[in-house]
Amino acid sequence: MPAWSSARYLKFENERSRPAADLLARVPLDAPEAVVDIGCGPGNSTELLTKRWPQARVEGFDTSETMLDAARERLPGVRFFKADAARWLPDETVDLLFSNAVFQWVPGHLAVLERLLKALKPGAVLAVQMPDNLAEPSHLAMEAAAQAGPWADTLAKAGLARDPLPDKTVYYDRLKPHAAQLDLWHTIYTHPLDGAGAIVDWVGGTGLRPYLEPLGEEERAAFLADYTARIAEAYPARADGKALLWFPRLFIVAVRA
Amino acid sequence: MPAWSSARYLKFENERSRPAADLLARVPLDAPEAVVDIGCGPGNSTELLTKRWPQARVEGFDTSETMLDAARERLPGVRFFKADAARWLPDETVDLLFSNAVFQWVPGHLAVLERLLKALKPGAVLAVQMPDNLAEPSHLAMEAAAQAGPWADTLAKAGLARDPLPDKTVYYDRLKPHAAQLDLWHTIYTHPLDGAGAIVDWVGGTGLRPYLEPLGEEERAAFLADYTARIAEAYPARADGKALLWFPRLFIVAVRA
Repeated sequence: MPAWSSARYLKFENERSRPAADLLARVPLDAPEAVVDIGCGPGNSTELLTKRWPQARVEGFDTSETMLDAARERLPGVRFFKADAARWLPDETVDLLFSNAVFQWVPGHLAVLERLLKALKPGAVLAVQMPDNLAEPSHLAMEAAAQAGPWADTLAKAGLARDPLPDKTVYYDRLKPHAAQLDLWHTIYTHPLDGAGAIVDWVGGTGLRPYLEPLGEEERAAFLADYTARIAEAYPARADGKALLWFPRLFIVAVRA
Repeated sequence: MPAWSSARYLKFENERSRPAADLLARVPLDAPEAVVDIGCGPGNSTELLTKRWPQARVEGFDTSETMLDAARERLPGVRFFKADAARWLPDETVDLLFSNAVFQWVPGHLAVLERLLKALKPGAVLAVQMPDNLAEPSHLAMEAAAQAGPWADTLAKAGLARDPLPDKTVYYDRLKPHAAQLDLWHTIYTHPLDGAGAIVDWVGGTGLRPYLEPLGEEERAAFLADYTARIAEAYPARADGKALLWFPRLFIVAVRA
């Protein structure tokens, strides 16, 4: 996997922060004392947390030094540390675990989420948002483009970087035994972007990364041209010239029993 | 169509008010002076509006006298009047048109929404939520049950009471020319209900009405038994005995250009 580019990720900051804001709006806590942003990235989700609860001790962690540097610059008053969402566990002081667009990258994340929820004290909250877009045209086109060029062998395993999310009923059955309340929902956002190129740009900062990284410069350009043509077909320009990127995301808010 | 039962509709008030609250949260107005709740029902959505903007002049209308009575009792300070969402138009004082779970019942609602948006002054907002669940197991089972009994002829047209919603791109193309901002999204809620019977109860207050109304008492009971068996199969009980009703809804927030 390539190093994350915080600038590229932040290019669509408004659109990418919206799900984090929607998740935060459903957290049923008035005044948590300790909040942890799991997979904080460049700190945009962390900033939402500090704004909602200025009195709370907010911390964030990530595996990417690049992202941690960007987050520290953005929020000098917050402690950011390096840790892995697949292994880290909260202590009993924590009131809220918040995680925006992270766990889709963690293999076996269902077991990890269950472990995190079980580690919380009663009344504490686990709040998680994950893209659920592997079956969308944007991502099916990645696989189609990967198989359609001389790079097919190189990219044979790129699609394995993320597993499809299990059905909502699977999350319910796994988390409910440890939850006093469990709220699950999907939202499919519709982002008007500046044409197919902007959609490619968007996923280029996230889902497309496993497809771009293994390629040399020349192949990468050819792959991108092939992929962009597929995107232009799947997301035709509307009357006003915009291409609508619809983007399904899964939300989980669990209150520990 | 049977008269609306406000008590039955309110049985799932928390769950039914959630989409209204989510829609309201996305209305980008700080202090509207005049707000109209289109198809106000028993006033639960209207109450959200009065709570968010206590200083505003909030009004509501509906075609159902039963609902209007319930709304007047709930909110004595609010003017409720009888009007039809398909024909009513706002004057230039209105800052916000709000409509929760109404326009799915209005034939040709796309043209109606366009007309309402065009009638608003610049900067005013049209905010609409509609169930988008005709392709869900809950509703496919209505049609299947309707065709599977001696009531098939009687119920041949029950499914025509509502048209399927057009694709999101259709709303975008139709409303965007009149909108300075246009936000479209779907949310699929997951409601844990007390088994298949509770799901039947839920839709019995809304989507199932066109199927129940044409039937006599005996046929209605037989139809309900058939329908309930289909629901139990489509929404099996989870580990904790709950049945998860997932429920897609379309949201539109348009700011008049």
